Amino acid sequence: MSATAVDMSSPVAILTDGLFDDLHAKTAHGIIRYGQRDVVAVIDQRFAGRLANEVVPFCRRPVPLVATVEEAIALGARALLIGVAPAGGRLTPEWRRLLEIAMAASLDVEAGLHTELARDPGLAAAAERAGVQLRDLRVVPKELELPRGRAHRRAGVRVVLTVGSDCAIGKMSVALELDETARRRGFDSCFVATGQTGIAIAGWGIAVDHVISDFVAGAAESLVDQGAARGDLLFVEGQGALFHPAYSGVTVGLLHGSAPDVLVLAHKHGATSPYGYEDTAIPPLAALIQAHELVSAPISEARVAAIALNTADLATDDQARAAIASVEDDTGLPCDDVPRFGADRLLDAVLATLDDVPETTPVGEHPVAG
Amino acid sequence: MSATAVDMSSPVAILTDGLFDDLHAKTAHGIIRYGQRDVVAVIDQRFAGRLANEVVPFCRRPVPLVATVEEAIALGARALLIGVAPAGGRLTPEWRRLLEIAMAASLDVEAGLHTELARDPGLAAAAERAGVQLRDLRVVPKELELPRGRAHRRAGVRVVLTVGSDCAIGKMSVALELDETARRRGFDSCFVATGQTGIAIAGWGIAVDHVISDFVAGAAESLVDQGAARGDLLFVEGQGALFHPAYSGVTVGLLHGSAPDVLVLAHKHGATSPYGYEDTAIPPLAALIQAHELVSAPISEARVAAIALNTADLATDDQARAAIASVEDDTGLPCDDVPRFGADRLLDAVLATLDDVPETTPVGEHPVAG
Repeated sequence: MSATAVDMSSPVAILTDGLFDDLHAKTAHGIIRYGQRDVVAVIDQRFAGRLANEVVPFCRRPVPLVATVEEAIALGARALLIGVAPAGGRLTPEWRRLLEIAMAASLDVEAGLHTELARDPGLAAAAERAGVQLRDLRVVPKELELPRGRAHRRAGVRVVLTVGSDCAIGKMSVALELDETARRRGFDSCFVATGQTGIAIAGWGIAVDHVISDFVAGAAESLVDQGAARGDLLFVEGQGALFHPAYSGVTVGLLHGSAPDVLVLAHKHGATSPYGYEDTAIPPLAALIQAHELVSAPISEARVAAIALNTADLATDDQARAAIASVEDDTGLPCDDVPRFGADRLLDAVLATLDDVPETTPVGEHPVAG
Repeated sequence: MSATAVDMSSPVAILTDGLFDDLHAKTAHGIIRYGQRDVVAVIDQRFAGRLANEVVPFCRRPVPLVATVEEAIALGARALLIGVAPAGGRLTPEWRRLLEIAMAASLDVEAGLHTELARDPGLAAAAERAGVQLRDLRVVPKELELPRGRAHRRAGVRVVLTVGSDCAIGKMSVALELDETARRRGFDSCFVATGQTGIAIAGWGIAVDHVISDFVAGAAESLVDQGAARGDLLFVEGQGALFHPAYSGVTVGLLHGSAPDVLVLAHKHGATSPYGYEDTAIPPLAALIQAHELVSAPISEARVAAIALNTADLATDDQARAAIASVEDDTGLPCDDVPRFGADRLLDAVLATLDDVPETTPVGEHPVAG
C-alpha cells in the first residue's frame, strides 16, 4: 500500500524558480536523471534558454529550461511539480503564486513539501475551481503501526540501506543505481523509496521524514515488507545522517526500522561539516563506519560494505579516482562514485558482504508495547 | 510558547480502565505522584474500592479508585483524563464510549494519545453538544523550525538529559526529582517536559514523539530555549531508548536537538530486552554508556554522569541497595533508584560532571539547510 497517488504518466514541468543549480533542487535533478516520466521542461527564469544537463551534468537528460509556466504548457506540460526541497519544506508565497497560475492553466500540481497542498484551503479551492488535482508526494498513511522486528521479515529477503555523512550527497542515487545494476545482473531486486524524490521516481513509498516520529521505524519496516513483495534484494534509500544536528532522528528510525543486513556509507569528497551546520564536524570515515555498525548492532548486525564517494566537486575523472583510492586506503573498504563511474564495484562489495552476514531466522509473532 | 492548553486547576478523574497496575498506566502514575493538580479519583473497575498508593506504591497519594464516571463526578471531577499510554497511542472504542459518557455529564476531556480528540468529528460534535472542552496534551505547534545548533544557546545554560535502556522505566521521574532536589538546594533549575505525562505535570512542553520526524531535533532545541527562559539548569525528560526497535528515532532526535552537557542513564534492574521486543537484547550498561557518549559527541560532547536504576521489582530496600552497588561496580559510576531513595546522590554526580564538561562558546547566527 502506498501513501501517495503518484502520477507517472502525464508530462510534467518541474519548477525550480532560480535554484536549478542549487543543492536544494535535488528533487528536480533526481527525477530528470532517474525518473521514467516525460519531463517536458524545467521552469527556472535564471537558466531559461539552456538545457538541464548543460547546467547540471548529473541530470543527463537535455530537458529545456524555460522562464514561464506558459512556455512549459506550450511544450506539452500537463502537471507542475515543485522540484526544490527547501529546509523546513514550506511553501513560499512566490511558489504559491506560480502554482495558482499553473492551476488556472489547467495543470495538476504536485509537491513533496511538508506543507500539504491538499490541506491548504486556498490551494484546494483553486484546484477545485480549475478542475485539477493536487498531489502530495510526502503524504503518509494515516494508520501507521509500530515495527514488529526484523525476525518477522519474510525469509530470504536481504536489505541494503544507504547511510551518509550528510543530506543531499547521493544516498538515493546510490540506492537507485545499485538496484538497477543488480536487476541488470539478474537479481530480483527492488528500490525502496523513503523520500519525496524517490517516491516520484519509483511510484510508491513513504516519506519517512514526514511521519510522526513515533512511527518512523514502523513506517520503515512497512516499506521493507512492501519491498519484500516485489523482490528479494532491497535497496533502501537512506535519509539524513546519523550525526546530522537536525535529521538524525529520521536516520536512526529508518536504520532500526529497516533493519538492514548491509550498509553503504555515502560521503561527499572534502566535506567537513553537515551543510549549514559549520559548528559540527563530520567524524573521520573510519569512525563513521564504526558508529553506524555500533548503533545498528542491537537491532540488526549490519556491516558497512563500501563507501559511496560523491566527487562532484572534482573536475576530472583522474582526480575523482585519486580521491576514491585515498578513501579505500583510509577505510580498507571498496569505494566508488556511483553516479560517475557506475555501481558495479559497490554492488560486488555489497554482495560479498551479504554472503558474510548471516540471515536472521524468522520467528513467530509476539506482542509489542511502548 | 507551549503547544498545549494544559488545565492545571480543575479537579480531574483519571481513566485507566482495568490497567491501573500496568506499565502503560504510567501517565496516571506520574500525574498522581508528581502532579500539583487535584486528582479526585481513578476510574478503573478492576481496582474499584482501593486506593492508588495501595495498588501502585509509586503513586504515593491515596487517590480513590472507583468503577464509574458517575462516582468520579460525585467526588468532584470536572475533567476526565485518559491515564493510559498504549503502544501506538490510539483511542479504543471502549474509551470512546466512556469519553462520551463523561462529556454528556459535562466533564472536559483530556488525553495525550496520537489520536487527537479535537480532530475526531464524532468527539468534537459530542463536545460541542455538551459544551465541554477537548484538550490534547500531545498536540504540537504547527510551525516547527529546524535547530540552529547548540552554540546558539544562551550562555550559562546547562542541560541534563535522561536517557535509558527502554521506555517506561523512569526517565521522566528521574528528571522531575533531580529538578525538585536542585531547586530545594537553591539552583535556578527547570524540568523540561517532552511527553504527554510530563506536560500534564509541568503545564507546558512539547510531546516530541508526536512531532513530524524531520522536526524532532528542532522541537527539542525549542524546548531547551523555552526552558532557558525559566532557569539555568535544565533537566530534560528523555524519550524512548537509543536501542529501542520502535522509538530510537525520537530518542536520537531529542538527544541531538537538546544537545545536553550531561546524561543520566536509566535502566530497569534485571531487564534484558526492551519491553515487547524479546528478540532484541539490551547491551551491557558499560556499552550503553559508551554508545550514548559516542552518538552524542559530534553534536554535543555529553558525558554520562550516573545510572538511575529502577528497582521496582525488588521487594526490600536492602535488595535494591545491593543491586545499586552492583551497578556501581560494573560501571564505575554513581547509581541510585531516585523515586525510591531520592535524587541527592545522582544530583551530586550530575553537578560534579557538569564542572568537568566545558560549556560551548555561543556563536553568531548561521543559516541552516537540509
